[in-house]
Amino acid sequence: MTPNPPWVQALKPAGPQGHELLQLERDKSSVPVAKLSEFLFTKEAIERKRRVLKVLESEKVFNKNQNYFAGRVDRFETALARAKRLRQLKVQHGWNQEDSIVANDLISEPGPYGLHESMFLITLRDQGTPEQHELFLKKAENYQIIGCYAQTELGHGSNVRGLETTATWSPEDKTFIIHSPHLTASKWWIGSLGRTANYAVVMAQLIIDGKPYGPHPFVVQVRNLKTHEPLENVHVGDIGPKFGYNTMDNGFLLFNHVKIPHVNMLARFSSVDLSTNKYVRPMSASLVYGTLTWVRSHIVLQSGSVLARGVTMATRYCAIRRQFQDRDAPQSEKGETAVLNYTMVQVRLLPLLAATFALHFTGQGMMRFYAESQKKIHGNANTASADRGAGPEETHAGSDSLADLHAASCGLKSLASSIAAEGLEVCRRACGGHGYSSFSGIGPWYADYLPTTTWEGDNYMLSQQVARYLLKSARSVKKGEKPTNDTTQILTEFLARSDMGAAFDIIGKDEDLVAAFAWRTAYLTFEAYKHRDEEKKAWNDLLVDFYRLSKAHSQYLVVKNFYEALQSPSTTDVLNEETRTVLHKLFRLFALNTLEQESSEFYQSGATTVRQIILARTNTVMKLLKEIRPHAVRLVDSWDFPDWQLDSSLGRYDGKVYEDLFHRASELNPLNAITVDPYPESSVLFKNDKSRDFKSKL
Amino acid sequence: MTPNPPWVQALKPAGPQGHELLQLERDKSSVPVAKLSEFLFTKEAIERKRRVLKVLESEKVFNKNQNYFAGRVDRFETALARAKRLRQLKVQHGWNQEDSIVANDLISEPGPYGLHESMFLITLRDQGTPEQHELFLKKAENYQIIGCYAQTELGHGSNVRGLETTATWSPEDKTFIIHSPHLTASKWWIGSLGRTANYAVVMAQLIIDGKPYGPHPFVVQVRNLKTHEPLENVHVGDIGPKFGYNTMDNGFLLFNHVKIPHVNMLARFSSVDLSTNKYVRPMSASLVYGTLTWVRSHIVLQSGSVLARGVTMATRYCAIRRQFQDRDAPQSEKGETAVLNYTMVQVRLLPLLAATFALHFTGQGMMRFYAESQKKIHGNANTASADRGAGPEETHAGSDSLADLHAASCGLKSLASSIAAEGLEVCRRACGGHGYSSFSGIGPWYADYLPTTTWEGDNYMLSQQVARYLLKSARSVKKGEKPTNDTTQILTEFLARSDMGAAFDIIGKDEDLVAAFAWRTAYLTFEAYKHRDEEKKAWNDLLVDFYRLSKAHSQYLVVKNFYEALQSPSTTDVLNEETRTVLHKLFRLFALNTLEQESSEFYQSGATTVRQIILARTNTVMKLLKEIRPHAVRLVDSWDFPDWQLDSSLGRYDGKVYEDLFHRASELNPLNAITVDPYPESSVLFKNDKSRDFKSKL
Repeated sequence: MTPNPPWVQALKPAGPQGHELLQLERDKSSVPVAKLSEFLFTKEAIERKRRVLKVLESEKVFNKNQNYFAGRVDRFETALARAKRLRQLKVQHGWNQEDSIVANDLISEPGPYGLHESMFLITLRDQGTPEQHELFLKKAENYQIIGCYAQTELGHGSNVRGLETTATWSPEDKTFIIHSPHLTASKWWIGSLGRTANYAVVMAQLIIDGKPYGPHPFVVQVRNLKTHEPLENVHVGDIGPKFGYNTMDNGFLLFNHVKIPHVNMLARFSSVDLSTNKYVRPMSASLVYGTLTWVRSHIVLQSGSVLARGVTMATRYCAIRRQFQDRDAPQSEKGETAVLNYTMVQVRLLPLLAATFALHFTGQGMMRFYAESQKKIHGNANTASADRGAGPEETHAGSDSLADLHAASCGLKSLASSIAAEGLEVCRRACGGHGYSSFSGIGPWYADYLPTTTWEGDNYMLSQQVARYLLKSARSVKKGEKPTNDTTQILTEFLARSDMGAAFDIIGKDEDLVAAFAWRTAYLTFEAYKHRDEEKKAWNDLLVDFYRLSKAHSQYLVVKNFYEALQSPSTTDVLNEETRTVLHKLFRLFALNTLEQESSEFYQSGATTVRQIILARTNTVMKLLKEIRPHAVRLVDSWDFPDWQLDSSLGRYDGKVYEDLFHRASELNPLNAITVDPYPESSVLFKNDKSRDFKSKL
Repeated sequence: MTPNPPWVQALKPAGPQGHELLQLERDKSSVPVAKLSEFLFTKEAIERKRRVLKVLESEKVFNKNQNYFAGRVDRFETALARAKRLRQLKVQHGWNQEDSIVANDLISEPGPYGLHESMFLITLRDQGTPEQHELFLKKAENYQIIGCYAQTELGHGSNVRGLETTATWSPEDKTFIIHSPHLTASKWWIGSLGRTANYAVVMAQLIIDGKPYGPHPFVVQVRNLKTHEPLENVHVGDIGPKFGYNTMDNGFLLFNHVKIPHVNMLARFSSVDLSTNKYVRPMSASLVYGTLTWVRSHIVLQSGSVLARGVTMATRYCAIRRQFQDRDAPQSEKGETAVLNYTMVQVRLLPLLAATFALHFTGQGMMRFYAESQKKIHGNANTASADRGAGPEETHAGSDSLADLHAASCGLKSLASSIAAEGLEVCRRACGGHGYSSFSGIGPWYADYLPTTTWEGDNYMLSQQVARYLLKSARSVKKGEKPTNDTTQILTEFLARSDMGAAFDIIGKDEDLVAAFAWRTAYLTFEAYKHRDEEKKAWNDLLVDFYRLSKAHSQYLVVKNFYEALQSPSTTDVLNEETRTVLHKLFRLFALNTLEQESSEFYQSGATTVRQIILARTNTVMKLLKEIRPHAVRLVDSWDFPDWQLDSSLGRYDGKVYEDLFHRASELNPLNAITVDPYPESSVLFKNDKSRDFKSKL
């Protein structure tokens, strides 16, 4: 760190200072920030965050100063040090699972123990027998072995059945032979495998007596527990740099006829019988099904806060950044205007601010829905945590509600992660030139988040599952079967009015606004039904329609969840009038702005009049932007991100944007330690480090 | 480089090999690739590329092997070495300006001489007097001084008038005092300044006798020519890492009352009179105006090829990548399907493929339009290079055509760079998981391109200039003035039919398709006119409408340029029937797909029927995708990107996707040289490099 010269230290930003400008913003609104935060996250969660943050801030290894500067090897090294220290802290402070999650959120970078602590432990726990728990899980929980979950291959992503790695049962010596028959069989993208793990749960095609039984999980040691060198006939390493996620060592893995004992096949659901050498059939797959649904619902819940980080940074900065005078402003107001006052900035940022709440409430709704359906399946109350949150109690009928939940989790995972990823990029660009600096904090966060649009079901692929479910529902409704859940309900209502059409007052009535989204979903569902079932169009020719259908259905679910959350007693009893009014405006902004962006489908379905959509855009939305604008900073404050977590010059709570940008650039930047020889004919590159000589590069 | 073990070296990808799959693709079409390339770029340009490529490939310093792995300091160091070597090669081979541009395109990374070789030289040349040319330009051309162009400040981007840096005329000693009054006055984002430049053209507010005269250019030395250390009272350095562009040393710069001589104010257009100490008024600003128009038109031309790189990589990879079986495929076709066969992939990639051609022809049209208007302004034929290319000759009436050109360049810069930037991200995601690897080549290219959406006029800001021009045109048409260019022509035609409405057959007739875009522009123009001139709405309340208007107008221009290029004799005489048929399908795909995405505006303007838009999407576009699909690989081949330029595992001409991914990951990846100690209680991080000890990090 090189301090700036005294005459530079004496300089301040021109005009009103950042902290003054943010104070002005906070004075414009009286939304009770702390109260709203508690409503969103619970008081306990906020206290937990403060407590864990205090510990992390005091540890040098978690200092983020060099995060944006360091290259891959250094970043990985620091991430490893952090992972180790975090594990030590957990033991030392007796942190539970929730504390650990909060710590990871605050650190905000994927770490080398990431897959060990999630999928490796979960898979051992869920799919292992008691004997296997003793053998593997205990050691894994004590970090005596470090593992990962090796499913995806170089040539195979979403299609698990296409995996090439084989596990061939050898009855002579009662072992499995794990083998990679081709280069494309190489495991690929496997988190924590590249450099860190010495064990892997490997998904491989089970083969008994020449017959394939599909992919199954096998526990395979890949590195020596002492030397950490790869075992014989195992080729393993890191797959190289990525667009983001570079603190994680995603790895590759190839096997050359590697033998593992019988006990290494995870045998809770299916196995090979030792005496008969026969395959033992699996139990129902509903448990795995449930896990995936939980994972996707969790992505929906996270998406709100993922996006909120970007919106927080952009909103605070746009309240400070001033550019040009308002053309129509009176001569007396001579200064430049905060860019947040420009409607073109508002129309980009404020609907995203609305989306953060929409997604948060939807995610909470999904988690509640999941808990309820688990309760029904398992027939006991233990699994259903009585989540605090918005939304009226609903009743769901058994398996129908499970299928509904599954489809909703697929569609919403796709929609929510797309909104968050694309929204973050909108936030970055709304920050103008400085959004491109790593110090903005938005770019690195966006880059790390992007894989969420691909993993746990590619966002495009997933839409087919939603369409399949809606087609099934349409068939049942067409047959005259009674509605059993919300989806069949809205389809039935649509069909009942097919001779009458609709007349939703989307601007005048909130219920009509929600109903218009339901109508569009139903319209598109029956269009798809007509194409597929009546006109017998090829599945592949309908993928674009299916994607639109899935998006429409998921948008309906978000609008509905947002609306219901605002009606719920848990909301109306807790929040004051002003807060509820602002949240209601956010609901309307989110719904009407979404409707306007998808207006052609609303026209075509006859859900709305052309006139109301034009008015919604030119009138209602513009008015809502103006009304929400004064609350923007307080609303992002209520997301309660500590500066330490954001690690952003632009998004600082105190508004010291320019001071922080300058400090990081001039005082923390390692590139400024080198002195260049700039002349083309000189072979010296860095005057103060002659080891980097030009000639050696030729 | 660590070679793979022999058993790994023996492995091949499963199933048909990449080169076989691409050969099958190339066999499906007979579009003459070389012929089409020559048509797009000219034979000379292609030969030039081959010649320069040969030189670069043979130089070790340009080897790209480590580009994706290296950290910031190492990347900058290599970029500096490359910049120096490139300069040496230029001298050695006598390369002209065009050769140099091609070399930079092939190297494809911003370099430390970037701003010296562009804005520094251009500004000295254009704005300097002969005396100043002698003093500064000559030295700069010989690389005895290395410069940059310092305009943007920490607190000031697009609004040049808001710059804070001052240049105060001191009549006593006939000097200017350059000063940064606040922290926000720090120059920021200045390319080549961070570490490389020793001179800068500084834009500063000229102050004479206490009176401000606006921003003017001053030549200021910032570093010692021998030691390269900053001069006294100059604080200069690199601004730190960015989302991309990290081979460039964007810099900051602060002055503490630095004196420079009178001759350092670039004085071709305005100056301070040495004897009277008075300001000498500037000449017309039309020249600068012209330069910006040229720069923007060039961005439009580039955008086609920028996007084409991503489309090339994604198209080739999607032809090789296979996933799932087609649900409706007969049992006999057992294998997985190339993802390019999925309509959901086609509908994302093929309209972008169409856009590459649309933007290329539009860019060529803009460059021709620019040359013509320069010819008119300067009244001689020298400046108008007789560009080969598509499009009929048009006549433009003097200043009207200049204003039209200016507006078109603003709108098209905004639209084209947005299409290219967003399109690249679509290409990256179309590659699924592997798109996230740096080896895909798309992510790094996207990250480097992104600033184009902000510089040379922020894409949102620029739309106001287009709207201003269209409003002015509407006023003239409303007054009954005769149309003087295409814009006033389409407005006049719209007005003439305002009592009749329109009936464009967008599916049946190409001319109607173009006319529907013109109609929508005119409709939105008069809507804006009504809001602003009649209803007196505030400018700020109309920014969203203006942005839509600008987009609509620019989309019309792209559709029109594409259409005219296909009609031009220079196209019809050169290309064979099959090629013209395919290009015509691409035109229709681009136009109809764009129309469908913006359908609500087409409905509202009454340009089209709802029925035709539905049919366009569900029928025409889907059919076009099918028809274009077999030509996709040959079409991207015609963009003629050498593998060396693409530096992409996924986009290789020979289809060796998996071999290349594996080679880079396992054999070139420096992270695989470290051996981790994975246990949390151990303080060792890397077993083979104990200097990186955990304890030192605590």
